[in-house]
Amino acid sequence: MTSAVSGDSLLAPGWAGSPAAGATSDSAYLGALLEAEAALTRAQAALGLAPARAATAVTEAADPARFDTASLAERARGGGNPVIPLVADLTKAVGEEYGPYVHRGATSQDILDTATMLVAARTLDLIVADLERTGRALAALAAEHRDTVMPGRTLTQHAVPTTFGLKAAGWRSLVLDARDRVAAVRGALPAQLGGAAGTLAAFGAYGAPDPAALPAAYARELGLAAPLLPWHTLRTPVADLAGCLALTTGALGKIAADVLVLSRTETGEVAEGSGGGSSAMPHKANPVRSTLIAAAARRAPQLAATLYGSLAAEDERPAGAWHAEWEPLRDLLRLAGGAARDAAELAEGLRVRPEVMRAHLDLTHGLVVSERLSAELAPVLGRARAKALLTGLARRAFAEGRALGDLLAEEPELHDTGLDLDGLTDPSRYTGCAGVLTDRALERR
Amino acid sequence: MTSAVSGDSLLAPGWAGSPAAGATSDSAYLGALLEAEAALTRAQAALGLAPARAATAVTEAADPARFDTASLAERARGGGNPVIPLVADLTKAVGEEYGPYVHRGATSQDILDTATMLVAARTLDLIVADLERTGRALAALAAEHRDTVMPGRTLTQHAVPTTFGLKAAGWRSLVLDARDRVAAVRGALPAQLGGAAGTLAAFGAYGAPDPAALPAAYARELGLAAPLLPWHTLRTPVADLAGCLALTTGALGKIAADVLVLSRTETGEVAEGSGGGSSAMPHKANPVRSTLIAAAARRAPQLAATLYGSLAAEDERPAGAWHAEWEPLRDLLRLAGGAARDAAELAEGLRVRPEVMRAHLDLTHGLVVSERLSAELAPVLGRARAKALLTGLARRAFAEGRALGDLLAEEPELHDTGLDLDGLTDPSRYTGCAGVLTDRALERR
Amino acid sequence: MTSAVSGDSLLAPGWAGSPAAGATSDSAYLGALLEAEAALTRAQAALGLAPARAATAVTEAADPARFDTASLAERARGGGNPVIPLVADLTKAVGEEYGPYVHRGATSQDILDTATMLVAARTLDLIVADLERTGRALAALAAEHRDTVMPGRTLTQHAVPTTFGLKAAGWRSLVLDARDRVAAVRGALPAQLGGAAGTLAAFGAYGAPDPAALPAAYARELGLAAPLLPWHTLRTPVADLAGCLALTTGALGKIAADVLVLSRTETGEVAEGSGGGSSAMPHKANPVRSTLIAAAARRAPQLAATLYGSLAAEDERPAGAWHAEWEPLRDLLRLAGGAARDAAELAEGLRVRPEVMRAHLDLTHGLVVSERLSAELAPVLGRARAKALLTGLARRAFAEGRALGDLLAEEPELHDTGLDLDGLTDPSRYTGCAGVLTDRALERR
Amino acid sequence: MTSAVSGDSLLAPGWAGSPAAGATSDSAYLGALLEAEAALTRAQAALGLAPARAATAVTEAADPARFDTASLAERARGGGNPVIPLVADLTKAVGEEYGPYVHRGATSQDILDTATMLVAARTLDLIVADLERTGRALAALAAEHRDTVMPGRTLTQHAVPTTFGLKAAGWRSLVLDARDRVAAVRGALPAQLGGAAGTLAAFGAYGAPDPAALPAAYARELGLAAPLLPWHTLRTPVADLAGCLALTTGALGKIAADVLVLSRTETGEVAEGSGGGSSAMPHKANPVRSTLIAAAARRAPQLAATLYGSLAAEDERPAGAWHAEWEPLRDLLRLAGGAARDAAELAEGLRVRPEVMRAHLDLTHGLVVSERLSAELAPVLGRARAKALLTGLARRAFAEGRALGDLLAEEPELHDTGLDLDGLTDPSRYTGCAGVLTDRALERR
Repeated sequence: MTSAVSGDSLLAPGWAGSPAAGATSDSAYLGALLEAEAALTRAQAALGLAPARAATAVTEAADPARFDTASLAERARGGGNPVIPLVADLTKAVGEEYGPYVHRGATSQDILDTATMLVAARTLDLIVADLERTGRALAALAAEHRDTVMPGRTLTQHAVPTTFGLKAAGWRSLVLDARDRVAAVRGALPAQLGGAAGTLAAFGAYGAPDPAALPAAYARELGLAAPLLPWHTLRTPVADLAGCLALTTGALGKIAADVLVLSRTETGEVAEGSGGGSSAMPHKANPVRSTLIAAAARRAPQLAATLYGSLAAEDERPAGAWHAEWEPLRDLLRLAGGAARDAAELAEGLRVRPEVMRAHLDLTHGLVVSERLSAELAPVLGRARAKALLTGLARRAFAEGRALGDLLAEEPELHDTGLDLDGLTDPSRYTGCAGVLTDRALERR
Repeated sequence: MTSAVSGDSLLAPGWAGSPAAGATSDSAYLGALLEAEAALTRAQAALGLAPARAATAVTEAADPARFDTASLAERARGGGNPVIPLVADLTKAVGEEYGPYVHRGATSQDILDTATMLVAARTLDLIVADLERTGRALAALAAEHRDTVMPGRTLTQHAVPTTFGLKAAGWRSLVLDARDRVAAVRGALPAQLGGAAGTLAAFGAYGAPDPAALPAAYARELGLAAPLLPWHTLRTPVADLAGCLALTTGALGKIAADVLVLSRTETGEVAEGSGGGSSAMPHKANPVRSTLIAAAARRAPQLAATLYGSLAAEDERPAGAWHAEWEPLRDLLRLAGGAARDAAELAEGLRVRPEVMRAHLDLTHGLVVSERLSAELAPVLGRARAKALLTGLARRAFAEGRALGDLLAEEPELHDTGLDLDGLTDPSRYTGCAGVLTDRALERR
Repeated sequence: MTSAVSGDSLLAPGWAGSPAAGATSDSAYLGALLEAEAALTRAQAALGLAPARAATAVTEAADPARFDTASLAERARGGGNPVIPLVADLTKAVGEEYGPYVHRGATSQDILDTATMLVAARTLDLIVADLERTGRALAALAAEHRDTVMPGRTLTQHAVPTTFGLKAAGWRSLVLDARDRVAAVRGALPAQLGGAAGTLAAFGAYGAPDPAALPAAYARELGLAAPLLPWHTLRTPVADLAGCLALTTGALGKIAADVLVLSRTETGEVAEGSGGGSSAMPHKANPVRSTLIAAAARRAPQLAATLYGSLAAEDERPAGAWHAEWEPLRDLLRLAGGAARDAAELAEGLRVRPEVMRAHLDLTHGLVVSERLSAELAPVLGRARAKALLTGLARRAFAEGRALGDLLAEEPELHDTGLDLDGLTDPSRYTGCAGVLTDRALERR
Repeated sequence: MTSAVSGDSLLAPGWAGSPAAGATSDSAYLGALLEAEAALTRAQAALGLAPARAATAVTEAADPARFDTASLAERARGGGNPVIPLVADLTKAVGEEYGPYVHRGATSQDILDTATMLVAARTLDLIVADLERTGRALAALAAEHRDTVMPGRTLTQHAVPTTFGLKAAGWRSLVLDARDRVAAVRGALPAQLGGAAGTLAAFGAYGAPDPAALPAAYARELGLAAPLLPWHTLRTPVADLAGCLALTTGALGKIAADVLVLSRTETGEVAEGSGGGSSAMPHKANPVRSTLIAAAARRAPQLAATLYGSLAAEDERPAGAWHAEWEPLRDLLRLAGGAARDAAELAEGLRVRPEVMRAHLDLTHGLVVSERLSAELAPVLGRARAKALLTGLARRAFAEGRALGDLLAEEPELHDTGLDLDGLTDPSRYTGCAGVLTDRALERR
């Protein structure tokens, strides 16, 4: 048995079945390659370089169902890219009369780069949508938990209190950073058209009065941006994709990293909506969405590195640097797209346990507010004395397992100071600007 | 003997002695850390949280000459960062009265992140300047060689003619892409201020009426952007730096890759202004600037990958992800800065040999214009016949070492076609839109 | 139309259709997963933990044709790995009586890690075979061209003469380094068996008298090495794979880098046996094999980096680090396997042009032996005079386009020195130990 | 103030002040470069190519105190490497008579590669020593805690019990894997000697009867391995270093990852011997050693990737690939060396809290042994009934906060089964082969 849509996704629970998977499949690339070929003939027809019927013939023949990706993949070996066999098949499909108008004046890279931009544009749209969805869910969490106090943790240890609202607002802020960068890159993705060495010369040889107008016409056909220059070896668009996708995956990886530590069995302050189970261990509810996002975040930076590395490409079209981009860019689109899907589900399903958070604030016997006490006792007792007192009491709090607040209350020198010891030692009253910062962050759209 | 300013640069001809080297030295970081501390006290004074005299005292004490980077580096081991011993030394230097106002309410990461942004801002300014300089030199080259014909090369082989002007215009376009991205990131570099867990709580404990106003005041003191939220684990600024620096180094790496292939002994179409010599081999003039840029371009992507990887940072401040950023970011600033310096020298000094370029166009016996002939003979002879004729003549041209133009001239069937065979086979007349594209690219500012 | 075997290989001319592609397909993984499950039951039967009939039943049911990779891929999302749905399907296929013996006592990672080692072992065998084949072809080239003189090039410039034999011998040396490392890693690939947390506890609960004996029995069933400990988070085998595959791809990348520069149009000292053509440009013969190998060499290091990064995996089984290994390891196997295939074809088909190499030695007007002249004239003329003379003549040689040898012959002070100027200036007589080194290198097996 | 030994280490608490820092400083490289030069003259003297007095003169002049690394670093820009100015300075220091014997016949890369191998050899020795030390401390921990039961955790959740002894034995196993690989690579580090293009030709020109014998003589002078061939662009030794250092850092990163999760405030099962403190928060004891190791483990893979990438180096000596190795290799030696130092301190100082581990086993209300109960109840109740019973009780255990053991004891159908419910539900009696595996692992030397 084999099912219709596949690709090698058995090892890819992070993106298999996601919208991005469909948008980046071999079928999707085949479709985009054919769109790129058809648009090229149409653009030439629009400028009078090809008969209108040729444009219609190519557009009709460019039906993905008539082409075989596996055969194309195999024959791509000969010349080193899939456009060469595709042009052969498409020319044949168009027939003798208009076949000569297929791919006329173009180079393989024009078509593959353009198709890649189409695939990227569609995948980025999906990613933006999932980032928006994630952002909305996080905004709701931040608003709901604006005042839910929890331990702030630094270098794995409780530091001072914070709120879950501020944490969720921070997550959202990162998600919006990613969204903004993805959207900006998406809007600038250009069509590619340069011909054999980027001079557009062949279009002139075929009779174009103004070949330099062709790239913009081509871009219009496809809804892509018009390129200032052919960018066969000026790979800013690919580098920009690398950057925004690595940032997106990493931003989601931050959320995953937090959920993973907060949902550890000992901590349990949050839990994924529907954890992955284990047949042998019914008590387990694994944070699967976070796990898969975390895995993506471990991989994306190195894929981006390969793409940045391909900027260093010699000549008018390079021997290797370009070819090294294809799979990593697809992988990166998939990883970011899969992570965005998982993040949306994660954010929408996250279960938050305020009472557990609150209880954990007492784990350090009240020392989670020691910073505050240092600040507030100093004016009263003098800095040196305040520090000595607190250090001593901190030691006792741990040794005796008693709350710092109780120990403070027993200190005679504090009795007539008018200090509100209950208030000062209440972690829920030492959250600083968490609420204000949350509000401020939620104003961002 | 040891000279005053060093750092470990014996293995770093790519950046040693560059402006970026000075801007990223241990001394520069020490200076920036001290600026960050002083600005913090000043910002607190401005909001009434500290006496004006404290601000003056801290600012005066924060003189880099009074601190010892090696000792700080050693003592940084204890707590895992250099701010802890620095605060101790600075507090001592400020003296008993105002010492308590040093670092008050802040966390180490506030200071180190802020100092890093100061260092980054200054280095980016230097990089932008060198990119501008490079861009100007490339604009001059592009204008001068607008019509200098040379072989366009794809997958290492001559394809069709292009111009050196278009090549230089493309290089410039990449350099301007880099400049634009670096400038945009530079303008958004934020100060960092959050306190122990990003809630700004301690500032309230010390009496600030509106601690949420402090970060913006702090940023103003330093000329950095005000952060929307503390970004201890929301690392967009660092990821943005990674992206623009990797793109910059890669963009310059493209130029270097071209110069390296074009200056190979057999090619010699360009040469670096002052090649590195060899005592034993007086004929050698190594393309040293390009070599060092190429080396930087091989390294930058992986450094950026580490920075993107640090986005996935748990908790309010993480155990490792943050610490993993420090050296790679400095390395990346240095590599990009060194490459920008070398690129400026390379572009300003590049020697171009139009006559060698022109001569190389004949290496393929005129076949460099075969694309054109295919296009122009087809309407005259019919597509099939044109192709058969050209294939046969191409074989003869190589076998007999004769020019395709001469062979064409002998073909009886072309005699009365009215075709301008001299014009059609002249590579310098098949440069397509190279000139127009160059002009268009040079309009960009 | 879709053909039987595919996977997403439209963008993968570097490995599509290679033996490694078949060995790493979703089908291959499915087969290996089923082998791992069947072997587990057989090993339990061998130790008396399961009835022999259960072993037979599971082995028979574990027929890949009965399972649907696409469905498994989709259902893998729930628990985050494909073993969970596979166990469900296999249990059902085995039937009620022996179904309970499927996967008994194991954890998903036991099966997936073991299957991965099976896939890796088979792919490494293919890679070793292609490396051997490449090595043989390179040995023949080195022997044939032991004394074929060519320019030695450093930093892109002619330095002193070398031989193509020494170059090919060096390539072979790298290939054998890769083969040795791949073979060593392949021999040590271990089975994985630890149960839920690596203690083998469940096997005891199911009645095994000595569960600690089970991993070795399991490994025997599969022809893998017995693990010292369960290695769920002790990932030395994966790191070792990363290292040997990155080295292999890089070693082949060195050959490709050389072929790419030597086959540039201006150089043309070598050519690929069957270059990829271009329909529009009949003179082009692109070095496609080298291009695809070069592309693989640009990607492999970063994939290896992700695998090395996964060494840092928390707990008994981690949330992300393990999941991040699956696709990069497969990609790396494919890239190395595809590159090994291409390298074998490249080495077997490489065309070498000794006459072009010889002609290029004169490009520097005889200065390619200036090192020799510096050494040999010094004792005759004194070091200072020798240097001055050579520097002056070098300048004249370039300026006047005359051969250094001719200029030397005109120097009166050399007339009665008895120096064999013809011999000293003959590049083919200044190849040093190239022949001896080639012989020595070819002795390695 | 500046202290004697520095380098840019202000941002490097992970390696500043470590033995590896000293072994890889600019001073250490300078010393190694001078050793390499002196050994070259001595080796030539040993083969009769230079007078014995020249060897003595060069050896005496090669005193690091007489050279200025900062000046060398600056002048390295001209030719792109530090050997060129060093040879100039050394020649001057040796004086007129024997100056000509300095560097005779060699190329810069011979000296820099050889010096790098010396530096690497010494640093690897330090790393091996710290890995041995770490291994011993971990062996002691494993032996002491052979039977210390703790929760085994998978995907962040409690799975089944394990022991701290098995965990420590696993850590040690990884450390020994690293040690074995580092030691193997260290033993094979070769000297480099090939001359301008790897043919050893200049040595012949200077009169060596058998220049091919020189590399081995040179290697003997330095205690390095004799190279089979000059390896200017056959970079197996560098790739092997990359692999063993990335594995080492990653292996230590696994230990750090575990300590970081186990020492979180909520978990507290282990603590670093001397945590880094916080002045404002006296209760904090940060796991600083683990943090710094974790940071190193995030960086090392990408540095290794750059080194693997440099395998693809064109020609006899490349323009960029070689230069790109220098700093990343030094960084990798430092990171691994610093991490090894920190790991030794971490392992020797680690505080283990068996009582906390034991208490955590009850966090899941006894469900940590549910796997065992599934196995053991099935034969008694039938598989389906056993599963239903356990699923129901698991739900109740969580809902009612009662121990699974107590709930089981109340089940009438289990009353007369003869099952030892106390034993079956005691986590400390469900550690499987943890003890046996620990013993087995500790036998490894």
